[in-house]
Amino acid sequence: MRVLLVGAGGVGTAVTRIAARRSFLTHMVVADYDLARAEAAVAALGEQGTRFSARRLDASDQDAVRTALVDERCDVLLNATDPRFVMPLFEAALAAGTHYMDMAMSLSAPHATAPYEECGVKLGDEQFAQAAAWEASDRMALVGMGVEPGLSDVFARYAAEELFDEIEEIGVRDGANLTVEGYDFAPSFSIWTTIEECLNPPVVYEKDRGWFTTAPFSEPEVFEFPEGIGPVECVNVEHEEVLLIPRWVDARRVTFKYGLGDDFIAKLKTLHELGLDATAKVAVPGPDGPVQVSPRDVVAACLPDPATLGDRMTGKTCAGTWVKGTKDGSAREVYLYHVVDNEWSMREYGSQAVVWQTALNPVIALELMATGAWKGSGVLGPEALPPRPFLDLLGAYDSPWGLREER
Amino acid sequence: MRVLLVGAGGVGTAVTRIAARRSFLTHMVVADYDLARAEAAVAALGEQGTRFSARRLDASDQDAVRTALVDERCDVLLNATDPRFVMPLFEAALAAGTHYMDMAMSLSAPHATAPYEECGVKLGDEQFAQAAAWEASDRMALVGMGVEPGLSDVFARYAAEELFDEIEEIGVRDGANLTVEGYDFAPSFSIWTTIEECLNPPVVYEKDRGWFTTAPFSEPEVFEFPEGIGPVECVNVEHEEVLLIPRWVDARRVTFKYGLGDDFIAKLKTLHELGLDATAKVAVPGPDGPVQVSPRDVVAACLPDPATLGDRMTGKTCAGTWVKGTKDGSAREVYLYHVVDNEWSMREYGSQAVVWQTALNPVIALELMATGAWKGSGVLGPEALPPRPFLDLLGAYDSPWGLREER
Repeated sequence: MRVLLVGAGGVGTAVTRIAARRSFLTHMVVADYDLARAEAAVAALGEQGTRFSARRLDASDQDAVRTALVDERCDVLLNATDPRFVMPLFEAALAAGTHYMDMAMSLSAPHATAPYEECGVKLGDEQFAQAAAWEASDRMALVGMGVEPGLSDVFARYAAEELFDEIEEIGVRDGANLTVEGYDFAPSFSIWTTIEECLNPPVVYEKDRGWFTTAPFSEPEVFEFPEGIGPVECVNVEHEEVLLIPRWVDARRVTFKYGLGDDFIAKLKTLHELGLDATAKVAVPGPDGPVQVSPRDVVAACLPDPATLGDRMTGKTCAGTWVKGTKDGSAREVYLYHVVDNEWSMREYGSQAVVWQTALNPVIALELMATGAWKGSGVLGPEALPPRPFLDLLGAYDSPWGLREER
Repeated sequence: MRVLLVGAGGVGTAVTRIAARRSFLTHMVVADYDLARAEAAVAALGEQGTRFSARRLDASDQDAVRTALVDERCDVLLNATDPRFVMPLFEAALAAGTHYMDMAMSLSAPHATAPYEECGVKLGDEQFAQAAAWEASDRMALVGMGVEPGLSDVFARYAAEELFDEIEEIGVRDGANLTVEGYDFAPSFSIWTTIEECLNPPVVYEKDRGWFTTAPFSEPEVFEFPEGIGPVECVNVEHEEVLLIPRWVDARRVTFKYGLGDDFIAKLKTLHELGLDATAKVAVPGPDGPVQVSPRDVVAACLPDPATLGDRMTGKTCAGTWVKGTKDGSAREVYLYHVVDNEWSMREYGSQAVVWQTALNPVIALELMATGAWKGSGVLGPEALPPRPFLDLLGAYDSPWGLREER
């Protein structure tokens, strides 16, 4: 299998380190807007890097991406950029006739008049609108294939297939006890994406109502995370799972709650009140007159790059799917989860826990595509494919999953 | 008297409106980096504007400022820009042989190793370092001549001359009950300056210890403001009065406390924790590659311009000086104050209250210089000059001051 990896940031770099240890890969082209970053990712692989090469590529330039896919004879494009580049990369892969995989879906837009009640453009709508073209080309666009969305969706499908007869609610729950030495505030994941997720109206699915939205930070609950992380306050957040799971898994309700904590929520609210979460550009003084910049990009530029914080980070991160329903006539409630200890991921891979956990899952999915265990055509979520082989490979990658029986 | 006014923002524009009603002025050149802004200020004066002209001027270009002062045969430069431009304007006036007046002094720099205990470079240090040159040129640099610093310093001198035999403490106290319709957060004064004042280590003066600093937002107290404003929580803030008053007025302690309120303090702390208060430039994506911008400029660009909010603002602002000491052997405590009602300043001048109150005082000072009531040479604070004629002119400008006997 030949792969074009677009984006050599934290997640992209971790993808190379995980993939380098597996034999399914014939070649991976590591492409980035900043060639030096792509070259650094390849160079860091050392002797393991013979199957990797670096290339400069502008992810917003659809023609250039298509050309790269054809030139490099790639089978699949793996998108490890931020969600702004989903559509040009998705369309470039379709045009080139390759498979496509990403870890976040095309962006939403709020409802014009009732943003906190009704959906406007939903996450992934732009991608699903092209499902017929992907089916016709007999290629697979596997969307939302990181850890959340991604592994969380695999858990949902697994629960439906093997653990439940009927599902009342599926709630993805994400929490951590990570702290970063020397920083008052240092998000462990892309602040651009975190703002997008947390300040957009959260989406909820109910079978008799369909998808709808609420005000940000709604329905707070304290969820007990496993392996020593403990209780964390979680709130509703806009996330792909809520849009993906109901398409392939029968459940009466689907939610996503993120364990943000009070302090983080307060900071996000302040950014919003000050207008600093905005992506629309504003004019500010520059060296040669006013320049146009996006306030959210400035927020990101002022914070440390989360991928570089691993050395000063302590703790564990947990991604998982809580499912409530019935099995053999009895009530059942389980939490399927995956925990990464930062100390372990730093020692084993030199990648911090959240970034490594995100990068692990698309590599497993690539391996399943390479072996033929996962195949299909059209625009598919991870829950469209058989969950067992995926969960088994987690163990083979030395990062097993867990199941906690809640009652 | 011929005046070069540098800066046609909110305060500069209000200066033109106040000065246009007074006869002491021969001519005022209104200069701004943005010529259209200077022209708009002059045009808005209508028939009252015959003594005013507009000119483009870069306040950071010392030679250009000196040339403008000479070309326009000005007697005095009035600086209505933000504090970053104090030094080039101050030095241009010295080079041109004119008087100089500003409303904020040269900037401080924190102590390298003990920023919250000891002073580093103090506000105004760079200006006072040139006192001998100003004395030698027989010209006056009147520094800190807005409302605070400015009128608050005049109050301190007045208290020392007429109300007290001995002064234990002088505490400048600033509070308001202004609200802005339609905004969660809309500072009524320049956010650039507000951040500078509030996040720098506050400075305190004690006679037996000299100047020293504390952590931001220290020594909170609830102060009762007059004329219906009521109680407001005030905290220590770095401000010029603490540096100016002890040079000319004998007091055992001098402080400045600002009525910020809990919500405002929380937002400022968040900006600081996120690094968004920084003035050092960061690289962010621009249309043609990375551009360098100052995060604090971006914060300002995302907020409404406070000078434009007058129409949606309601309430009053109060500047004043609380003094505690003895008179004729008895304890005495007074609050000398000046209140502006936004509804009044909008109706009378089309300027919002805080901006108008700041602009009023340098115009009075110019009038006192024009009539010869205030004269001198060197670098002087407002408390170096006779307070009575200044306070009397407040009444003549229809904006009288008040005295509240505290005990």
